[in-house]
Amino acid sequence: MSICSNKRLSVISLGGVTEIGKNILCLEADDDIIIIDAGLKFPDESMPGVDLVIPNITYLKKNRDKIKGIILTHGHEDHIGALPFILPELNVPVYGTLLTMGLVERKLLDRTKSKTQDIKKKFSLNVITSEDKLELGCFKVNFFRVNHSIPDGVGLAIETPAGLVVHTGDFKIDQTPVDGKVMELSKLAQYGEREVLLLICDTTNAQREGYTLSEKAVGITFMDVFARLKGRIIVTTFASNVHRLQQVINAAAEYGRKVALSGRSMVGVTEVASKLGYLHIPDDMLIEIDEAKSIPDNQVVIVTTGSQGEPTAALTRMAQQSHRQVQIKRGDAVIVSANPIPGNERLVARTIDSLFRIGAEVIYSVDGTVHVSGHASKEEIKTIINLVKPKYVLPFHGEYKHMAPFAKLAVEMGIKKEHVINAQRGERWDFHNQEATLAGTVPVGEVLVDGLGVGDVGNIVLHDRQVLSAEGVVVVVLAVNRNGNILAGPDIVSRGFVYIQENKDFMNKAKYLITEELKKRDASKFKNWSFLKEVVIEVLSPFIYQHIGRRPVILPIIIDC
Amino acid sequence: MSICSNKRLSVISLGGVTEIGKNILCLEADDDIIIIDAGLKFPDESMPGVDLVIPNITYLKKNRDKIKGIILTHGHEDHIGALPFILPELNVPVYGTLLTMGLVERKLLDRTKSKTQDIKKKFSLNVITSEDKLELGCFKVNFFRVNHSIPDGVGLAIETPAGLVVHTGDFKIDQTPVDGKVMELSKLAQYGEREVLLLICDTTNAQREGYTLSEKAVGITFMDVFARLKGRIIVTTFASNVHRLQQVINAAAEYGRKVALSGRSMVGVTEVASKLGYLHIPDDMLIEIDEAKSIPDNQVVIVTTGSQGEPTAALTRMAQQSHRQVQIKRGDAVIVSANPIPGNERLVARTIDSLFRIGAEVIYSVDGTVHVSGHASKEEIKTIINLVKPKYVLPFHGEYKHMAPFAKLAVEMGIKKEHVINAQRGERWDFHNQEATLAGTVPVGEVLVDGLGVGDVGNIVLHDRQVLSAEGVVVVVLAVNRNGNILAGPDIVSRGFVYIQENKDFMNKAKYLITEELKKRDASKFKNWSFLKEVVIEVLSPFIYQHIGRRPVILPIIIDC
Repeated sequence: MSICSNKRLSVISLGGVTEIGKNILCLEADDDIIIIDAGLKFPDESMPGVDLVIPNITYLKKNRDKIKGIILTHGHEDHIGALPFILPELNVPVYGTLLTMGLVERKLLDRTKSKTQDIKKKFSLNVITSEDKLELGCFKVNFFRVNHSIPDGVGLAIETPAGLVVHTGDFKIDQTPVDGKVMELSKLAQYGEREVLLLICDTTNAQREGYTLSEKAVGITFMDVFARLKGRIIVTTFASNVHRLQQVINAAAEYGRKVALSGRSMVGVTEVASKLGYLHIPDDMLIEIDEAKSIPDNQVVIVTTGSQGEPTAALTRMAQQSHRQVQIKRGDAVIVSANPIPGNERLVARTIDSLFRIGAEVIYSVDGTVHVSGHASKEEIKTIINLVKPKYVLPFHGEYKHMAPFAKLAVEMGIKKEHVINAQRGERWDFHNQEATLAGTVPVGEVLVDGLGVGDVGNIVLHDRQVLSAEGVVVVVLAVNRNGNILAGPDIVSRGFVYIQENKDFMNKAKYLITEELKKRDASKFKNWSFLKEVVIEVLSPFIYQHIGRRPVILPIIIDC
Repeated sequence: MSICSNKRLSVISLGGVTEIGKNILCLEADDDIIIIDAGLKFPDESMPGVDLVIPNITYLKKNRDKIKGIILTHGHEDHIGALPFILPELNVPVYGTLLTMGLVERKLLDRTKSKTQDIKKKFSLNVITSEDKLELGCFKVNFFRVNHSIPDGVGLAIETPAGLVVHTGDFKIDQTPVDGKVMELSKLAQYGEREVLLLICDTTNAQREGYTLSEKAVGITFMDVFARLKGRIIVTTFASNVHRLQQVINAAAEYGRKVALSGRSMVGVTEVASKLGYLHIPDDMLIEIDEAKSIPDNQVVIVTTGSQGEPTAALTRMAQQSHRQVQIKRGDAVIVSANPIPGNERLVARTIDSLFRIGAEVIYSVDGTVHVSGHASKEEIKTIINLVKPKYVLPFHGEYKHMAPFAKLAVEMGIKKEHVINAQRGERWDFHNQEATLAGTVPVGEVLVDGLGVGDVGNIVLHDRQVLSAEGVVVVVLAVNRNGNILAGPDIVSRGFVYIQENKDFMNKAKYLITEELKKRDASKFKNWSFLKEVVIEVLSPFIYQHIGRRPVILPIIIDC
């Protein structure tokens, strides 16, 4: 097509490089854009109160007409979670495998509170297989199957005007996957025989030596553990880890146990995965959580959410004995079949400790292979590089601590140092005549979702929340008439500061000091409320710091009487 | 002594069981009490703004006259850190080894802003060696040397009216300690030949198989790494890990590097440890941090605080390029010679990532033995149990997840199940006629230190801080005269809630709704301020939740005009 004749490709990450989370990558050629993934990120401790973080899509909204589609590599939140926010704004076709699109549909239904037929009418949601080939403007997109901690993941081989781009998606090379579907390395070998311009590679485990263990290793542990356990078994894992759940079901079948599901996402994902044929549950095996009580303990497995110690998740409530249906008791065994995501360590540790306190046996990371990663370690990454033989590599799905060992490894394998593109978010990398150049930047950033608000919480609000959280707030109210006469106050109210009942003297002294200082000042200036507020802060801030060494938010409020 | 004739012993933990931190244990017999350790704990994320957590010593203040002394096992914060708060209240003799007491003195000087001679005049601070024997009322205290991640640690063998009690202190069995001083297992063997009533045992690593590696393993890594590195080396570790520092110095000497120290506690502890002979630094090796710039990079080592990613620590500031004297640059290598303490994982990860971003080589846990634990693993604990042959065991320095595997291990070794005492804080365990019984409880709890305030932040304040942190605060002010006429307002001010400039309409609507609701209500009730406040909350809370799905702290303030 002549319109694709300029042989130029731009690669722009709006999220997912120099970070783990909110993956979204744009490929642009002539007047065509394709988007790979549209993920969210969970907030860190610097964002109190924030529910989700999604990418800034200003650039995409501005170039809405160029976008030919969004291609999803797999169904994890950090790859599909921003769709309910982004899709209504862009409304472009979405492509993904059967399970991925099943999870997308569920997500869109949840967020938009619509019906299935409405969703399907409103949006163009398209199921592909790894054998399909998509023509999206200047791009021809081929797929190859990968292994990952969710079934039905794919990588992409994209023919672009500037050359062939291979995108691994999130992957590991599992030689014995639970569903028997090994990664399509032969396709990668074929691409490698042609000239691959760019490999975009998952670097999550680029710092780990050797190979990531097969998912089946966990199944072996389950069989061993189920063989010896005599009481009730509770397994917690990520709801989306369908193969993990399959292995729990296999062990349950082997040892004559029924399975009950607990937690909204566990029930939801299981429903989708079963319906679409990714999860095989023997007839009569699934029971309602309420039925579990009427069956002997040694015939029950409960599979539950809460592997990250999330405060409201089912296992967390069970561990706090506040779950309505399941009370953990001595004799129960809890298998924590997941590692804490960075930042969740303390929450997970607290749940584990609470379970031990109740007297349950807890089987977790110290006890052997109860979890394996879904991401490739060094040897697997090397295998991919050797098969694909790219000219350029671009690490994604990693922070600097993953990008650095990835770069080292790539260079050791013969990639030129200057051909390792450590892209920053928003950077536009242009490929032309087999050369890559940094050709500018586009707007990027984090859009915070808090409750129903999307983007109404920013740095100022977060900063205030942090100070409020550490030091509390002291509100000082003065009533003033329009001549600047102080009619009432100062009244002082605080929250999160000190225990008020025991610090009345302190508060009274503060009031006295403000009153005395105001007497000394030029009352004619009191019509200027900013001046009044400054006086309050000037008096109160050092007084509080000297007396109790704290710096609360001081909020002077002047009311016009 | 006839006064000790009742042959009864009480053991009470006021802190340090079912938790890691704020260790403080009381042994009581007749009218005598001895206290073992007086530590602090660092706050967790449920205590925003809190600096330190110390034990509640109500029981000790009430029994002040019985207390014969405080015996310190070693100089870590979780064993001595509460002394500056507790000692002024109790003022009883303190006993510890030379290094421990050196660190205590420094700590008391810091907190009380006094001079050395005043501290020594005011408090009875006594240096003991592991060969000493203390007679403290009904108790005869013997010491044995242990290995740990700070030099000069001791365990205790206490002859009590009810029998012999062995307390391991924090320990590991290092067969090749850096200072050559192996743990005095022969003493433990001798106690084991007598009848040991109770073993109080460090359980921190009771879930870990095998042996904890020798501290020297880290020295070998240092030598290997120093041999190959060509640029500047920055090492971060705990300031109190004197042997770790010694090994850095040894490697620096071997490879012709000078050493600069960074961070207040690093400089302070090094000073104490050198002066007291625990740290051997060749002449001319130490340089000031400012001098480091004028020396070639390959001749410099900087040893710094910040191994836990603490926001204000030296390494953290270096990683953020905000340190006045040290700018990290490409070519630098940073060795993170410490593991994150639970809860600090994300802070540590962030520091490591920032260092990689700058282009430094970062050598951390994934790169081999850059750190070893100071606590005994299963095989070491078994060794102690076999040597001491106690009738009872009481796990300390552990949460439930450590206590459970410890109990399992003890029972496997022949301790009766009912002789494993999983003591709760505040429980009084009585030993009499070789029998242990739970004989009541004493007050316990966490006293929070925030700035200069000790104990003035409690659950209500913390709860408010948590809500403020997640949702912010909305203040509504109404000016009312004594007849209940509303003279001004409602005025609304918020912090940490939404970005105000962009939400003026929302705020105006809220004001309007309150005003309208007040018009509908019976104005004669407005003299009752609680009623007015309730109306404000009743209107505002659902309005805010419906519109943006948040539940901020709503603070109605009525001012009397």
